[in-house]
Amino acid sequence: MAETKYDVVGIGNAIVDVIARAEDDFLVAEDLVKGSMNLIDETRAETLYGTMGAATEMSGGSGANTIAGVASFGGRGAFFGKVAEDGLGRTFAHDIRALDVHFETPMLTAGPSTARCLVLVTPDGERTMNTFLGACQMLGPDDVDEDVVAASSILYMEGYLWDPPQAKKAFVHAAKIANANGREVALTLSDSFCVDRYRDEFLDLIKSGTVTLLFANESELHSLYETADTETALAQLEQDCRTAVVTRSEKGAVVLTAGERVHVPAAPVDKIVDLTGAGDLFAAGFLFGRARGMDPEVCAKLGALAAAEVISHVGARPQVSLQALAGQNGFSL
Amino acid sequence: MAETKYDVVGIGNAIVDVIARAEDDFLVAEDLVKGSMNLIDETRAETLYGTMGAATEMSGGSGANTIAGVASFGGRGAFFGKVAEDGLGRTFAHDIRALDVHFETPMLTAGPSTARCLVLVTPDGERTMNTFLGACQMLGPDDVDEDVVAASSILYMEGYLWDPPQAKKAFVHAAKIANANGREVALTLSDSFCVDRYRDEFLDLIKSGTVTLLFANESELHSLYETADTETALAQLEQDCRTAVVTRSEKGAVVLTAGERVHVPAAPVDKIVDLTGAGDLFAAGFLFGRARGMDPEVCAKLGALAAAEVISHVGARPQVSLQALAGQNGFSL
Repeated sequence: MAETKYDVVGIGNAIVDVIARAEDDFLVAEDLVKGSMNLIDETRAETLYGTMGAATEMSGGSGANTIAGVASFGGRGAFFGKVAEDGLGRTFAHDIRALDVHFETPMLTAGPSTARCLVLVTPDGERTMNTFLGACQMLGPDDVDEDVVAASSILYMEGYLWDPPQAKKAFVHAAKIANANGREVALTLSDSFCVDRYRDEFLDLIKSGTVTLLFANESELHSLYETADTETALAQLEQDCRTAVVTRSEKGAVVLTAGERVHVPAAPVDKIVDLTGAGDLFAAGFLFGRARGMDPEVCAKLGALAAAEVISHVGARPQVSLQALAGQNGFSL
Repeated sequence: MAETKYDVVGIGNAIVDVIARAEDDFLVAEDLVKGSMNLIDETRAETLYGTMGAATEMSGGSGANTIAGVASFGGRGAFFGKVAEDGLGRTFAHDIRALDVHFETPMLTAGPSTARCLVLVTPDGERTMNTFLGACQMLGPDDVDEDVVAASSILYMEGYLWDPPQAKKAFVHAAKIANANGREVALTLSDSFCVDRYRDEFLDLIKSGTVTLLFANESELHSLYETADTETALAQLEQDCRTAVVTRSEKGAVVLTAGERVHVPAAPVDKIVDLTGAGDLFAAGFLFGRARGMDPEVCAKLGALAAAEVISHVGARPQVSLQALAGQNGFSL
């Protein structure tokens, strides 16, 4: 296999998060289901912003958070995602490039504005997300730099990409290039409602071997196999996917690979402040380890460590060097 | 005296903070003096933003942070400050209104963009600020709503207002109205270099009795009286100002009033994460207590409590309800 230039290249929705604390009553008044991700239009985004509290803006987007995490571990990352040439778009581009991530997707000069996600964090740390996709809907196959995909150990994609129709085509195109170059193709199921929208397509990607590494949390897994029983779903998943990582919040994670199951406990966290990004950062640790040839247990432990860091503060990207944190926790990267 | 509608009305530079962690080496490479506030032009702002790390955007501005703190204590706040009608301007307006602060200064529709402050936080929690004043330079006397000033217990102004020339006129105009209505007029010296730029004018405001309540930290006090000896400066200050509050970081604060000195210790904080806003939030607690007729010691203790909260996390505005925090700490507001 040819030498790699990047550990992980991600494709995802390029989003800036607008994060505010909210009481449970506010969710009820705004008819929002706690813990969910809702797609909203720009008018609703304006209205909801008008009623929500004082906010903090920071770059987000599930796949982009993961690539930021890979970079924080010292990994070489690249990202494809569409922003508009506006204030939020420049913020997104600055923040990801500041991590030395390769990000050269052309900015949209006309059309919808940069995507934003209004994140409401309740006192229990749970987040409820309201996403205006905006410019993300214009990401297409032409935005996939084939040389970058061919030169990356792993191609990582978020299930949320199925929402903007052109982005799905970019995903499929990139997966073909990665498959042809013998690279690993990873997918995260993103959220249970997203799985509900695109179940058959996701199953097809896994069963056909297009995707060889799957990330899911328990509720996404239940949704994928339409069962409330985790064991039933895990047994099915073992049949369908070469390697799968199922995260189970405070119960840790289980990696299914080569007929084996590896269980890894959750890393300790003093106080859960904001759950946003937990899954994204778990994936970051796992993917970094995987790209560097570590065994599944170590990969999952790196994932658990990164997830614990990100839920200990507001925002979905690491606030410390994950490379340094891993070092302090006895990992030699 | 007529009934009040607001506890505190602030006048200040309306700024959005762009906050990033930075190593000490970065400050050296960028020729920045740690702990200072530097005024920069838009070109320099672009260049520095290009070299600094991934950032978080949140509303800031010294006086605005103070009013946000007053509101968090349950106080009734109002604010005058100039933003442009752009993304950052809308962010600033949203965030301060979300706290139920009266903010109706007309947005600038042509001219410079909304002010931003590039805040670099080093591992020791110290912050180095780089401010592009932008639209703030267009705040003028016409932006002072006389009815609001007349109806506020305290008028609070930041020394930084002396930098944009028109804003100084707004300050003087507002002070006249407050004085004429028997309201208290408070000033913070903002920073030692600011004092160095406008020493004579600040001394004149105090000695003339235009300002009757002064906030300063130790280095600002040293700069005001051009001495390195705190006792010499305090003795002078007692002569010059009716009431003065001098904050001394981990040594607490001293209130000089009616020939007495009241010492208050700093409130405990687990870990100093980011010193941005410490002085602003001390002022918030003090002013809230003052407007509600509390004695100087209680006012200073509320200030210490608010300062301890804000330095325990990134960003210059409180992340919890200061009213609730005060309740948990035995204050009945």
